[in-house]
Amino acid sequence: MGIVRADCQRQDEQDPLRALRDQFQLPEGVLYLDGNSLGALPKATAKRVASAVNDEWGHGLIRSWNTAGWITLPSRVGDKIARLIGADPGEVVVADSTSVNLYKVLSAALAMAAVAAPRKKVILSERHNFPTDLYIAQSLAREHGCELVLCDTPGEVDARLDEGSVAVLMLTHVNYRTGRMHDLRRLTGLAHERGALALWDLAHSAGAVPLALKADEADFAVGCGYKYLNGGPGAPAFAWVHPRHADRFEQPLSGWMGHAEPFAFTPDYRPAPGIARYLCGTPAVLAMTALECGVDTLLAAPGIEALRKKSLALTDLFMELVEARCGGQGLVLATPLERALRGSQVSYMRAEGGYALMQALIARNVIGDFRAPDLLRFGFTPLYTRFVDVWDAVEALREVLETGVWREPRFQARATVT
Amino acid sequence: MGIVRADCQRQDEQDPLRALRDQFQLPEGVLYLDGNSLGALPKATAKRVASAVNDEWGHGLIRSWNTAGWITLPSRVGDKIARLIGADPGEVVVADSTSVNLYKVLSAALAMAAVAAPRKKVILSERHNFPTDLYIAQSLAREHGCELVLCDTPGEVDARLDEGSVAVLMLTHVNYRTGRMHDLRRLTGLAHERGALALWDLAHSAGAVPLALKADEADFAVGCGYKYLNGGPGAPAFAWVHPRHADRFEQPLSGWMGHAEPFAFTPDYRPAPGIARYLCGTPAVLAMTALECGVDTLLAAPGIEALRKKSLALTDLFMELVEARCGGQGLVLATPLERALRGSQVSYMRAEGGYALMQALIARNVIGDFRAPDLLRFGFTPLYTRFVDVWDAVEALREVLETGVWREPRFQARATVT
Repeated sequence: MGIVRADCQRQDEQDPLRALRDQFQLPEGVLYLDGNSLGALPKATAKRVASAVNDEWGHGLIRSWNTAGWITLPSRVGDKIARLIGADPGEVVVADSTSVNLYKVLSAALAMAAVAAPRKKVILSERHNFPTDLYIAQSLAREHGCELVLCDTPGEVDARLDEGSVAVLMLTHVNYRTGRMHDLRRLTGLAHERGALALWDLAHSAGAVPLALKADEADFAVGCGYKYLNGGPGAPAFAWVHPRHADRFEQPLSGWMGHAEPFAFTPDYRPAPGIARYLCGTPAVLAMTALECGVDTLLAAPGIEALRKKSLALTDLFMELVEARCGGQGLVLATPLERALRGSQVSYMRAEGGYALMQALIARNVIGDFRAPDLLRFGFTPLYTRFVDVWDAVEALREVLETGVWREPRFQARATVT
Repeated sequence: MGIVRADCQRQDEQDPLRALRDQFQLPEGVLYLDGNSLGALPKATAKRVASAVNDEWGHGLIRSWNTAGWITLPSRVGDKIARLIGADPGEVVVADSTSVNLYKVLSAALAMAAVAAPRKKVILSERHNFPTDLYIAQSLAREHGCELVLCDTPGEVDARLDEGSVAVLMLTHVNYRTGRMHDLRRLTGLAHERGALALWDLAHSAGAVPLALKADEADFAVGCGYKYLNGGPGAPAFAWVHPRHADRFEQPLSGWMGHAEPFAFTPDYRPAPGIARYLCGTPAVLAMTALECGVDTLLAAPGIEALRKKSLALTDLFMELVEARCGGQGLVLATPLERALRGSQVSYMRAEGGYALMQALIARNVIGDFRAPDLLRFGFTPLYTRFVDVWDAVEALREVLETGVWREPRFQARATVT
C-alpha cells in the first residue's frame, strides 16, 4: 500500500515543529514551495517594521541612531545569524547584498592568497554556481590577474584542487538549481591541504541546513537574507570571515561604516578591528529590521538539527510521491536522493514545457519556480511547510501533467522574472 | 527695527509651499532641522510600506517580482530622481549605498581615464569631503596605481586642475560640514578643459538645490536616498552616468542585476546596456518602496526652483537672526553668505562645548546635529520647515547660550552617533 493523504495528516499531527507555522502570515489557499527563493512573511514583521517607520523614524528621527539602536543593527542581526551558521558572536555582519559581500570577501581572499601563495592564480568554482557569484569572480579574477576555472561536475572539484594551482575555492554550499549540497568540512579541509582558501556562499544553506563554519575551519562565507532567513524581498545579506583572518586584510569597499572610528570623520581610512571592516555604507535600517524578524523565526525553533530532520522528511516524501504518482511524465529528478547531499529543495528537469508547467501549477496556487532552461524547483521550508502540503502539491502536479492543462496558451507567456 | 516672530508667521502665511508640510508626519513639539542628515517621514510611507509588506510580500510572495513591479523599482524610482537632478528617464538607477555606488562610478571613471589619458594619475578631491568618499577613493587609487590629492580650500581645486595631471575630479557638490556649494557647471567645464572627468556626489544636493547634470555635461554622479529625498534611515542610493559614457565601460561590482539577461542564468557576465549595468544584487524592495514615497514628496512641489527659493529665504533668515540674537556668543559662521555658494544648511563653528550645546538644544526639541570637532549643523528642508521654526530655533539657541544650561553634565556624555 502506498502513502495516502491521511498518512501525511498524521505526520503533521505528530510534528514537534508544527506550531512554528503560526509565526507566518501565509495567504489562504496558497501552497508555497518557494521559500528557497523568497521566504514567507513572518507575522511579527509588519508590526515591527511599522514601529521602525512610525516610532523610530517618524518620531525618533535622527536620535534613533542611538536610542533605537540603529547603529548596532549590522552586528546585532549578525550575531543572531551567527547562531545559525556555526559562528560566534562578533563574527558576522549584515550588510549590502550577497553579490557585494562576495566582492568584499573574495577580494580579501585573493589579497591573502597573493601573500601566502603568490603563484597560485586560480579561483575554482562550478559552472552551475549561481551566476552572480561567477560574475563577481570574473571581475575580480581580471583585476587580480587570476583565472576563474569552472568545474562541470562536483567530482571535478577534487581533481582540480589536486593540481595545486588553486588560490581560492569558491563554492555555493547548496546549489540553487539542483539543491545538491557539498561537504563543506571535507572540501574546506582538502582546500587547505592544497594550500587554497575556502569561501562559501550559504545562500541556500543558512537557516536550511546545519552549518559549523568555525568548527569546519572555513575561511570566508556570505549568505542571503531573503531566502530561508525570511528577511523580505531584497533583504540585506551577511558576511562572515574566520577570526584568524578578519583583522589581517582589508576589503576594497572601504566605506565609513567599516572605519575604526566612523564618527571621528578623519580623512584617512583605518579599518575597524574584526568583521566590522566588512561594513561599507550606512546600514539599511528598515530592511535590517525586517530581516531581524525573519531570523527570529528560525531562532524560535528548537535548533537547526530539528529543522533539518523535518526538511529531509519533507523532501523524502515529495520525491517518493512524485515518483509514485507522476512517474512516466517526463520529470527527471535533479536532486540527490542521498540525504547528505541534499539541501532543502527538490528539482526536476523536464525537456518540454517546464515553464508552462510551473505556470499551470502557480495558477492552481501551488507556487514553486522555474529556472531556465528546463528546471522546476520546489523548496521546503520546515518552519511552515506541512506534510499535507507535500501531498497536495504532488496531487496538483499530477493533475496538471495528466490533464495536459499546461499546454494552454495562457501558461506559455513569459514574465520578466521567471 | 529687527525681525519679530510675527514677521515669520506672516512669511509662512504667504508661503506658496506651505501645504507641502502636510505630506509629513512630524512629531508634535519637535523642531526638526536635521533633514540634511535624515529626512522626515512622509505620511504616505507607513501605509505604502505596510502594503509592500502585507500585500506584495505576504500575499503576492514570489509572484510580486512581476505583479507588483518589484523588478522595475531600481529604474522606476531612478526615473523619478532623474527629474530632480537634471537627467533623463533611463539614466538613473537606485541601488546599494552611496559608498558602494561611488565605488562603481569611480572605478568606471578611472578605467575610462586610463584609456583616454593614461598618464593622468590623480584623483582630485577635498580634505573636507565626506570621509566615505575619500576612503573609497583611497582604495581605488591604490588599486589603479593613482594618487588621491586633497585640496584644503575650494580655490586650490582650480590650481590643481591647471597642473594637468588630474584624471578624475571627485567632489561633493554641497559640503556636508559647511554647506558650501561648488559651481558644478564651471568646475565640470574646467575639468574637461584640463582633460579630466568630473564625478559629483550629490548627497547634500539632490532634492535640495537645482541640478542640471546633463546640461552641465557632468560625467558621473551618485547621491543619497535618506537626506533630502526623505527615503528613510539607510535608504538606497542612486547612480547616474552620462549616456555618452554609460555603455563604454564596465563597473567591477558585476552582479546579476547588471547583466544584460539576468534571468538567462548564463555563466558569463555580459553587462546590460546603459545605466542598468550599474546595478549589482537583488533590489532592496522594502527600502526602495519607502524611498519612492520620499521622492514623491519632492515631485509634489511646483518644481525644485520654488523649493530653492524658499530654502534660501530660510537660511538667509536663520543667519540673520543668529547674528542679531546670538551675536557675541562664540558662534562662527561656517556657511557662505553668498547665495550661489550655499546649499540648504547653515553651520557654525564653536571652539568650546559645541557638542554639549547641540545636546542642550535637542533636549529642548530643537534637533540639529554636531560634527566633530566643533561644528553645529542646521538643515533647512523647504518641504516642511516653516519660517516660524527658524525663529523658534534661534530663540532656543539664544536661551541655551545665554543661560549656559549646556554646561550641565548631562549634556556632555557622548553618544555612539554624534
